[in-house]
Amino acid sequence: MKIIFQDNGNYLNEWMRALKHSLPQAEVSVWQEGDHTPADYAIVWKPLAAMLDGRADLKAIFSRGAGVDGILLSGAALPPQVPVIRLTDAGMGVQMAEFVTHAVLRYFRQFDVFAEDSALKKWQPRLPQKREDFRIGVLGMGVLGQKIIHALQTFEFPINAWSRNSKNMEGVQSFSGEEGLAEFLSSSKVLVCILPLTDETRGILNYKNLSQLPRGAYLINVARGAHLVEEDLLQLIQNGHVAGAALDVFAQEPLPLDHAFWQEKRITITPHVAAVTMIDESAEQIAQKIARLERGESVDGIVNRQRGY
Amino acid sequence: MKIIFQDNGNYLNEWMRALKHSLPQAEVSVWQEGDHTPADYAIVWKPLAAMLDGRADLKAIFSRGAGVDGILLSGAALPPQVPVIRLTDAGMGVQMAEFVTHAVLRYFRQFDVFAEDSALKKWQPRLPQKREDFRIGVLGMGVLGQKIIHALQTFEFPINAWSRNSKNMEGVQSFSGEEGLAEFLSSSKVLVCILPLTDETRGILNYKNLSQLPRGAYLINVARGAHLVEEDLLQLIQNGHVAGAALDVFAQEPLPLDHAFWQEKRITITPHVAAVTMIDESAEQIAQKIARLERGESVDGIVNRQRGY
Repeated sequence: MKIIFQDNGNYLNEWMRALKHSLPQAEVSVWQEGDHTPADYAIVWKPLAAMLDGRADLKAIFSRGAGVDGILLSGAALPPQVPVIRLTDAGMGVQMAEFVTHAVLRYFRQFDVFAEDSALKKWQPRLPQKREDFRIGVLGMGVLGQKIIHALQTFEFPINAWSRNSKNMEGVQSFSGEEGLAEFLSSSKVLVCILPLTDETRGILNYKNLSQLPRGAYLINVARGAHLVEEDLLQLIQNGHVAGAALDVFAQEPLPLDHAFWQEKRITITPHVAAVTMIDESAEQIAQKIARLERGESVDGIVNRQRGY
Repeated sequence: MKIIFQDNGNYLNEWMRALKHSLPQAEVSVWQEGDHTPADYAIVWKPLAAMLDGRADLKAIFSRGAGVDGILLSGAALPPQVPVIRLTDAGMGVQMAEFVTHAVLRYFRQFDVFAEDSALKKWQPRLPQKREDFRIGVLGMGVLGQKIIHALQTFEFPINAWSRNSKNMEGVQSFSGEEGLAEFLSSSKVLVCILPLTDETRGILNYKNLSQLPRGAYLINVARGAHLVEEDLLQLIQNGHVAGAALDVFAQEPLPLDHAFWQEKRITITPHVAAVTMIDESAEQIAQKIARLERGESVDGIVNRQRGY
């Protein structure tokens, strides 16, 4: 079995070692521009269009992440019969849950305010905020969104969740579609974005939508930078409608040195680390999916290309 | 029914309103020094010895917190037949779980380091720490300790727990007694103290014990300031053995302005807010316990005075 692997300059050796371990029988080569040697599978992350363009020889294309926007929006003409398969959780769910829970607790328990007090040697207990006033709204109810919701439920937060199509989850107030968005937003004190990036969700965190959050709301974006209209958020933070934001992803990464976000202390910046790919788990998941495909069995995570995820 | 209430200068009106709501039939009066009028119950928090000294008229003494060190160590000669009853959870468990989870995630996910980077406009992804190297050791397996453990298990952390007498909890490596302490400490990357304060636990967070933690360990104290020998922690932080501490309680509160902790940025100070008493829940719990006592039924939270909690 031949596998082509797209190197994006990160962790190539670790991936090669992990794939050798999980797929000892496979011949894994790093794809080079101009290489058209037939292969069985491709393992990619934001590939060049040339790597996948018209590759009808492939039995499947595996994403090295939960998102596939880097593949579907690469410009490659992907043969329709070749399935694009994304990772499902693979160690990312718990990391996303950690990141979001940390940010929610920081806002809810005012740990930033206590840190400011402490820097001034100020001992100032404060009345706690009320949990019932701190409804969390999770945009996206996929595997990762559900893991985030489950973690927040441990702390008894009331939860809203929104998805494209109606989904139910125990203890969660669910909303769906364009028609459910306004009510979802207006009752969410903290908005968490864990949506896939598609043509429909690009720019969903814009002035019109964010201004429907209650005044003093918070935004946590752990999905893609392109979900957010950055200048709209800046305006809403500066006019006080949004009290703070924890952003892990940006339109341009690394975030440019002259970007206004660096100056805004109500925006917490992390360098796209909310959930890093766990290489061993990911290689093992891909190996198991290949084994199932080879046996003609179904696999999780096959992307619906019309839907975009 | 007559109830004497000890005012400690905080939230008297809120308590009176809540007790009137939960115990409409009771006559609640604020105790004054020199008042020896017989009463059925006392509701207290760090009372003067004079309030409880020899009060054989009382049917029970209720603590307004989960801890009773303020009562047992008040110096009052408490008649042995009068039960001292503490709050069990009453909304504090989830708050403790929030506080500890936030601090653990901050250390584990290096959010402090990312904040320092961000202040310098530095975009610097970092390799994640390994969960298996981040075993959390919880000192104290009472109602609050168990709630903390349950929350940390949501994030798949390996957990050690230590209690005076052997206790089992699913998925937890349990240790007990003096003989179990060394092994517990040496395998705990983060030490969380949620012990009751007794003569046996006073000063348990001392140089000898803290230096048995692995190098680079963290301390989270949400119990009582007197559990910690403050100068020992300072020395261990300054010599690098302890990497950081999140302290909510101190030997002297408010923390004095000239205290060295204010200057040490590896110590995170909060003003005894990890779990604030939820007045409505607490009044309701006390009312329900009184109703059970009046019917001759058993109640939770009766303190074993020899044990001290």
